[in-house]
Amino acid sequence: MKDLGHGANVNHIAKMYDKNPKDIIDFSSNINPKVIQGLEKYILEGLSECRSYPDINYTNLRNNISKYISVKSDFIIPGNGATEIIYLLMKSIGKRLAILNPTFSEYERSAKLSGLEIINLNLNEKKQFSIDLEDIKENIEKFDSLFICNPNNPNGKVKDLTELLNLMIQNNKLLIVDETFMEFVAEEEKYSLVKYVQRYENIFILKAVTKFFGMPGLRLGYGLTSNKEIIEKIHNYKEPWTINSFADTLSNHIFEDKNYIEDSKKYYIKERSYMLQELRNIQNIVVYDTDTNFILIKLNDRRSYEIKVELLTKGNILIRDASNFIGLDDSYIRVAIKSHEENEILIKHMKNVLGD
Amino acid sequence: MKDLGHGANVNHIAKMYDKNPKDIIDFSSNINPKVIQGLEKYILEGLSECRSYPDINYTNLRNNISKYISVKSDFIIPGNGATEIIYLLMKSIGKRLAILNPTFSEYERSAKLSGLEIINLNLNEKKQFSIDLEDIKENIEKFDSLFICNPNNPNGKVKDLTELLNLMIQNNKLLIVDETFMEFVAEEEKYSLVKYVQRYENIFILKAVTKFFGMPGLRLGYGLTSNKEIIEKIHNYKEPWTINSFADTLSNHIFEDKNYIEDSKKYYIKERSYMLQELRNIQNIVVYDTDTNFILIKLNDRRSYEIKVELLTKGNILIRDASNFIGLDDSYIRVAIKSHEENEILIKHMKNVLGD
Repeated sequence: MKDLGHGANVNHIAKMYDKNPKDIIDFSSNINPKVIQGLEKYILEGLSECRSYPDINYTNLRNNISKYISVKSDFIIPGNGATEIIYLLMKSIGKRLAILNPTFSEYERSAKLSGLEIINLNLNEKKQFSIDLEDIKENIEKFDSLFICNPNNPNGKVKDLTELLNLMIQNNKLLIVDETFMEFVAEEEKYSLVKYVQRYENIFILKAVTKFFGMPGLRLGYGLTSNKEIIEKIHNYKEPWTINSFADTLSNHIFEDKNYIEDSKKYYIKERSYMLQELRNIQNIVVYDTDTNFILIKLNDRRSYEIKVELLTKGNILIRDASNFIGLDDSYIRVAIKSHEENEILIKHMKNVLGD
Repeated sequence: MKDLGHGANVNHIAKMYDKNPKDIIDFSSNINPKVIQGLEKYILEGLSECRSYPDINYTNLRNNISKYISVKSDFIIPGNGATEIIYLLMKSIGKRLAILNPTFSEYERSAKLSGLEIINLNLNEKKQFSIDLEDIKENIEKFDSLFICNPNNPNGKVKDLTELLNLMIQNNKLLIVDETFMEFVAEEEKYSLVKYVQRYENIFILKAVTKFFGMPGLRLGYGLTSNKEIIEKIHNYKEPWTINSFADTLSNHIFEDKNYIEDSKKYYIKERSYMLQELRNIQNIVVYDTDTNFILIKLNDRRSYEIKVELLTKGNILIRDASNFIGLDDSYIRVAIKSHEENEILIKHMKNVLGD
């Protein structure tokens, strides 16, 4: 199998280090630790649905998402995770794509598989990976679409994209925003571009469902756009029945669970603050600000793979070696924000390994 | 949404005819009505797995399939249904593909999306849609790969492919066989080419899991080949995490359920015989032989869509109008073999509508 260099490959790591996968705490993937009330009941409901084919048009699923985000269901394209939508999108846009790095590697992989020309632009590392609008302006004739992740993976700082959006509208370019981690942000409504989807055809938004709702194994995500040409192209390429019945059935319930949503938001506000404070007590590292559920760390005098191996062997902790992100190097690691108890264990071992 | 012309779109049909989807008996999709014992327990097991990402290499899943079919796990490519594998395969083979018609429309759609040149060859309608080996020999220089479904959808007669396989080996062509319905066949071992996969690089086999195991909403299938070049190309194109945790977890149990497998085989031997006999009592139709879980019927003096509408409005029965299969016309319909009680209802209404 091809190593795509993602986090979350716990079984593979466990085998390499002769450990039981169940003993490893996975800080390499960014999943909400909270559990939705009634999940067992909903899953058993899905079991009876699973006896027949999923609705090939996902009418019910699209209506549920529509109610949740207040976007017309015609503008919603559900996918097997956001990943399916990323790959479909690459087949359906102009041939020249700018990507703001460092970021999630599947954007580049999917673009290459569709034969797109990739223009790698950089976020400003020295200014907390902020957007360098001047650099984008200088390069604007070189691309048809610009891909940005907000809040960005692997740093977690949310950005105000208003100026960027205006620039793209003025130049008739497509702005693609992966908002997979937006629901973890305290001021989600301020920063999310979902509210502009119906107004501007220049926007395409990607959303994962199952990171915030804590079930990545369920596989559910969606794309949003009012750009009819792109919607038509995507449906032309979309394979039938990619979304399973459990994901379809759960959509009847999870988006209406206001308690889960509010509790999660409150939890992350508090826990981000705790994690940043504790990590900043550790010597010889730079801890980047975050608005979401993971934290990027720069090691001043250690290598990412050394720390990864030490945390694994000494603490059964799996972190993300962030050295393979374009624009980063082997001084970067990324850790998820998990349950408070798990976070305490991480902090303890990080202090042990790096010194406080 | 694009109408891909498949069966099983019960919700859509129900809406069109102002019916409750729950009232409609779906004879348009071909699903085993039997239920695996312990399914609820297995699904709840999947729920805990679902809290983390599926293994990107599907090691456990491939091992389970390997035990079930006695093929090395390296030669197994699991997919989100057989559908994912069909689309990947089209990106990974020579540019000229022959398809034996009439057959499942996704072969052609996926081939077109990958820009393949399609050579449409025909099964011999006058001889129960058997293989016309002479016709294939005459055209053999025109294609790199030949796609056949066995037993074929929409007729259900299984074929002995030994001669065809030899012809393909002699001419160094790839034989692609969709064996999605092979587990319903009484003499499966005799007809399945799975036993040759490790010996010949000229074979690619597709298998759906969830039709025979009665859970199409679960989304699980796989491809089999020992052709290393094709395996490598497929992994190059394969998107990550397409298979959900429930499918992965259920693979620990369903393949070992010998009772389910034997009961299903026995049931279909008996029920096929019952259905064929009863249908052949109906006037003015030709009922084709079947070895699987569906039956193709030719109407002598009625149109497929008329009968579809009559059965729906009078009997709440949804059948498959088979007129859109290449090589068929609007005198063909297809019906699934479902539970005995449901089959009795179908027979009663067919007699009503067509006359006995």
